[in-house]
Formats: sequence, C-alpha cells, structure tokens
Amino acid sequence: MEIEEIHITPWEAEAFVDYERLVKIFGAKPLTDREVDMLANVAGEVHVMIRRRVFYSHRDFDIFLEAYKSGRRCALYTGRGPSGHTHLGHILPWIFTKWLQDKLGLELFFQMTDDEKYWHSESGSLEEFNSLAYENILDLAALGLDPSKTHVIIDSEDISYLYPIAIKIAKKITYSTQKASFGFTDSTNIGMIYYPVLQMAVAFLPSELYRDQVMVLIPAGIDQDPYWRLTRDIAPSLNYPKPAQIHNKLLPGLGIGGKMSSSKPETAIYTTDPPDVAKQKIMKAFTGGQPTAQLQRKYGGNPDACPIYKMYEMLFEDDDKKLLDRYNACKTGNLLCGECKAELAERVAKFLINHQERRGKALNYVEKYLIRHKFDVPKVRNPNRNTK
Amino acid sequence: MEIEEIHITPWEAEAFVDYERLVKIFGAKPLTDREVDMLANVAGEVHVMIRRRVFYSHRDFDIFLEAYKSGRRCALYTGRGPSGHTHLGHILPWIFTKWLQDKLGLELFFQMTDDEKYWHSESGSLEEFNSLAYENILDLAALGLDPSKTHVIIDSEDISYLYPIAIKIAKKITYSTQKASFGFTDSTNIGMIYYPVLQMAVAFLPSELYRDQVMVLIPAGIDQDPYWRLTRDIAPSLNYPKPAQIHNKLLPGLGIGGKMSSSKPETAIYTTDPPDVAKQKIMKAFTGGQPTAQLQRKYGGNPDACPIYKMYEMLFEDDDKKLLDRYNACKTGNLLCGECKAELAERVAKFLINHQERRGKALNYVEKYLIRHKFDVPKVRNPNRNTK
Repeated sequence: MEIEEIHITPWEAEAFVDYERLVKIFGAKPLTDREVDMLANVAGEVHVMIRRRVFYSHRDFDIFLEAYKSGRRCALYTGRGPSGHTHLGHILPWIFTKWLQDKLGLELFFQMTDDEKYWHSESGSLEEFNSLAYENILDLAALGLDPSKTHVIIDSEDISYLYPIAIKIAKKITYSTQKASFGFTDSTNIGMIYYPVLQMAVAFLPSELYRDQVMVLIPAGIDQDPYWRLTRDIAPSLNYPKPAQIHNKLLPGLGIGGKMSSSKPETAIYTTDPPDVAKQKIMKAFTGGQPTAQLQRKYGGNPDACPIYKMYEMLFEDDDKKLLDRYNACKTGNLLCGECKAELAERVAKFLINHQERRGKALNYVEKYLIRHKFDVPKVRNPNRNTK
Repeated sequence: MEIEEIHITPWEAEAFVDYERLVKIFGAKPLTDREVDMLANVAGEVHVMIRRRVFYSHRDFDIFLEAYKSGRRCALYTGRGPSGHTHLGHILPWIFTKWLQDKLGLELFFQMTDDEKYWHSESGSLEEFNSLAYENILDLAALGLDPSKTHVIIDSEDISYLYPIAIKIAKKITYSTQKASFGFTDSTNIGMIYYPVLQMAVAFLPSELYRDQVMVLIPAGIDQDPYWRLTRDIAPSLNYPKPAQIHNKLLPGLGIGGKMSSSKPETAIYTTDPPDVAKQKIMKAFTGGQPTAQLQRKYGGNPDACPIYKMYEMLFEDDDKKLLDRYNACKTGNLLCGECKAELAERVAKFLINHQERRGKALNYVEKYLIRHKFDVPKVRNPNRNTK
C-alpha cells in the first residue's frame, strides 16, 4: 500500500522520491559511516558515489565486506533489461561496479534479460531485444569492465546456466507470492510471472560454478529490490548464502519527475547519442531554476529538485568543493540555468566522444564477455546416472 | 465442468471412462475407417492398437497423413514425466510410436519432463527425477526405438533447445488461460504454471531445427490433451503448423478403477519388476469376474470392466480371433479368472525377461538417444548481431 504511494516497481519509478522513507518501507538499511569505513579499509579509498550516498542503502553490505576481508570467495552481480540503447542512468551503477571490481578484484556476473524485455514489451521481437543485449555489452566494454572477470549471461541464449537453479527456486514460489511481490494480475503473461526466478537464479550461480558458498553483492537501483527480498527469503532453504545489496538512487530524467527512462527518449542521454543531440537535450531540459534569469537572480534555484544539478552530483563533478560551490551559486541566484546547462553539455559531450570511440573498438572483443565461452554449464548433480 | 465430472487431467485420470463422451468434450474426432485406410495406404499395414481402437481419437491425423504422403517433412513427438520407473501403461503408446517410426521412417522427439515431475512432487529431489529420466530412456532402447532417429530432450539439461521457442509461447498465455486449461490455483507454484510452455515448445522444435514447416504428430494418452489444444490455438500466431494428435486409451490399473499409476505401485507392472513380482501382482489383481468360481460359471464375467482382459486386448494378445474367444469364454462363464490371470502372468513374465535383457544392454548406448549429441541449439535469429 505504502509502496504503491511511492510508486517504485522494477518497471516504473519516480526519481525524486523520499529515499529515506523507501529504505524503511523496503526494510533495507541506510549506508552509514561504519560500512563506508569498512569499504575504505579493504578498497584503500572510497568512491565518490559512496561519499555522496548515491549508493545510499544496503542489506548485509557489512557482512559481505567482512566475508571478503576474511578471504571467503565473493562475487558481484548486476544486470540490464536490454529494452533499448544504454543511457546515463544505466551506466551509473556500472561505473561503481567497475570500481568495486577493480578495487576488490572480483568476478562480475552480468545478466541481460532479453526474455523479460520481450515479455514486458508491447511491441518488438525477441530477436530485437537479443540484438540490443549485444549492443549494451559494448557499453560495459567502453566503461572498461574487465572481460576476463566480467561474465555476461544473455537469458535467451544462456538459459542452461540458470535453469537447474531456476527449477528449484520456482518450486518455492506460488502465484500468490508473485502477485504480492510484483503486482501481477491474472491477465499478466506467464513469461512475466516466471521471469523473476531467472533474475533470482543468477544470485546463486557463482555458488554452483565454484561449488562453494559464494558471497554475492548486488549493486543495483532500488527499483530492483522486490527481486532481492524474495531471493533472500528463499536462499537458506536452497542452501545458498543470502546475497547482499547496495542500492543506488535513480538518475533523474531531463523532464519533470521520473527516472531517466528509455520509454521517454527525450528525457535520457543515450551512450549512442551524437554529442550534439545530447547537448540539445540538456539545453532543453527541465531544471530546478526560476522561469526567468531575473527571477533566478532574485530568488535562486532549487538544486535538490534539479536533474541538471543531479547529473553533476551523481556523474559529472568529482570535486566535492566545486560541487558545493555550484550548489550554493544556484541557491543564491548567482548561477543561471543556461550557464549551468552549457557547462554540463560540454562535459557530457566530451564523455560521449570518448565512450563512443571505446565502444567502437569493443566490437573486436565483445565475445570475451560471454559466460558461454568461459564456464561449463553447472550439472544437475547426478552421481548415479546410468550412462557411461 | 463436464471435464471435471469425467476427471481427466494430465495429473490424474480414471481408466474406465466414457471415451466417446470424452472425445466430444475435448473436441477431438473419433478415429474412423477413413483415417485407418489412409494409414494402411502409407504404412502397408495397420497396427493392432489401431485396429482395436486403443488409439481411438485424433486431431488432423488425416491432414498429417496427407502431408506425409505428399513428401512434406514430418516428425513424431511424445514424452514422459519421469516420476518413477516405466510401467506397461507408459510403454503402450511407445510401442505404437516405434511402429510409426519404423513404417514411416520418421524422426521422434521425446521429452523427459524431470522439471515438471519435480515441481509436481511432494517429495523427491530434482536429481532423483533427472536420474529417472535416464532410467526411462533404457526402456525406449529396450523397445527398439531407433537411436539415430529418436532424440531425447531432458528438460533440466536440454532447456536451451526449447527456451527461445518457449519465450514466444509464454508471451501469448496469461495466468487466466493457465487456470482455465489446467486447473491451477493461486497457491500453485510458478514452475507448474510455467511448465506447459515447455511441453508445447517441443511441438515446434522440429520446425526450428530443420528451418522448415514440419508437420508433427503426437501419439499420447488422452490425458495430455489440454496441452495440445493450447498448442494448436497458438501455433498460427507463431507461424508454426498445428501439431496433429492421435490419442490412446489409458491402460487400466490392476486395482479398482484408475489408470495404471506410479502413485499406486501395486496397480502397475513396472518394466523393472522381477518377473515373479509381476506375476504376483497379476494374480492378486481386481477383475471383472464373479467373487467365486461357482458364480463365475453361472453368471459369467464382465471383460469390458476387467483390467486383466484389457491387458490382453491392449498389449498381450495380437490374434483377434483368440481375443474374441477369450471375451466370449469369460462372458459365458467358461473361463475362470485364475486361469485367465495365470496365462497373462506367463506372457507378462516372458515379456519382462526379454525386455530386461535388452534394457541391460542399452546401458552401453543410451547416450545415442540424447538430442544434445545430435543437433545444435537453434539460434535466436539475429542477423544484425554486432559480434564477429
């Protein structure tokens, strides 16, 4: 009931939500200095997204870090529903995930849910979503995720890695549970109803591949939380460790309210946007400023409700001092929206030029990310099998 | 409503049902002399199970035979839920399927639904049902099904063959449809709710493997009909031919009412039963005879409601004249149940000795039946894929 008021599901989300309240409703914990210190202790430093609490809540992140420190096998897991090209809202958690991968030397399992996107879509063929999965891998490559430690599972093609685990999960979940967790109705297609078990299965895949109790950390948007609550409920009964999570806030879209969303392309900067197009989108964006320059100078703007400011805070200004200056200059009316936008537009354009060049080069080695070239399918264990 | 009265679902069935009424309710067609003649025309002869209408109803069997005669690519499809060892009720349609394979030279796709049996079971591990799937293949081998033309799909291990097709089917089916077709409730696990798409997917697999519009004939018990009705409803929208069916009656169990069922082991003769155990089960069986020899001589028995007589009719007496003599001798009281059982027991024991010897030898070549050694996984077609 309360969750519906806040309106966050894996398929739709507002951006400027009351994250503190959300944490309470979802039963997660806010990220505190204690966990941040623990991370600094093992990583040697702290990422800007942690410092600014872009990643702001968690479940068992402390337990994960303790396990890591004690030498226990750990892994990362995140993913993407390839419904279109990648935009900045998608790569936000991937940037942090890459940092974790580099600092902690962890394997990352990355799920491309082309099946889910096909089931959820009004139009579009399975082949198209599958193609987009391969497109999206180019962005992982462009961000520099290590191909020897990043293992991409494309659901429609790599299902055999997940299915033996998914069978066991599916037996534990009734239709009632799915209705309550995901808001399905009787007219939902059974692909959608079944799909969550596949997203859950990846959390247990490292344990199967390594035949070990692998501690998994999932960095992902808070909108994915319903999957992880269910995954954690079920883990003990299947003798897997509960996966830990660290949740990021959603990058606001360039329109009024809402997260950066593929379903509203004018509100999102895609990694494939020509830099000039991206600039135009930014220049036309909604802001937290006043309607006119005169009013802005007089009353100041509201950076806390401004998607342009949030772009600086979450992605495009690493320097805390400069960010604070920008915040204050906006508040006091010294900084006008046009100027603030123009500077962001330049930074975004520069990022895109660089990213697109790396993306083009990645065509040569995208296959190196595919799990199918690196791991055998886990066996349905069958010691008494009657074959030779 | 009416279907519930007759009480046939894929998971539970009575044996002595009103098959004529069932055909009407299910909207299938009774097998007539026309189809039998068409079969004789292409096969050169007619199998005893057709002559006696053990296979008694169909959908598009005539269209299938016409397609076959015209040189169109055709295939057979049947399967087994490996919930235990194979019993005589299971092998009945396999014997006819082998005959079709031999006479028409057809490839057979055979699904082992270890996932479904695990989802449906109260106890038992996935590994156990998977082991049973391999056990059950030995029976296909013992019956002489051609390993070069018989391709076994074990769901938990060969899911990648089915999944791209299953994704497309799942999108077309809502939970409401599943409820109505299979009687699921909100407390059914989502494995069961999803499973039907996998049974349906095999009907379209030959078309994917051969990249052709392959006409598929499914010989199977009438209790599997809900799957095929749904499969046929969906086929045109996915651009596959509707699969044809030919339905057999269910072999009665040795108890009162009910089909030969793994859930009541004393009512079933397993292919792995020691011959003496099988004999004892037959001698203890319920019959259509009178309580005493004296009453039997006076009033005669009722072979139409007798599982012993049905065993002769459906499996153990090929000679029509001898079968009719037995029927009449029972009816008139000239044949006593003990005598009739003893003769059946000898035939069954002889069959088992022979079958078990072949079954043992099959251990050496069971792998030859597995689809994974013979066909590549069909591709999610993706001509624009960005990999090299």
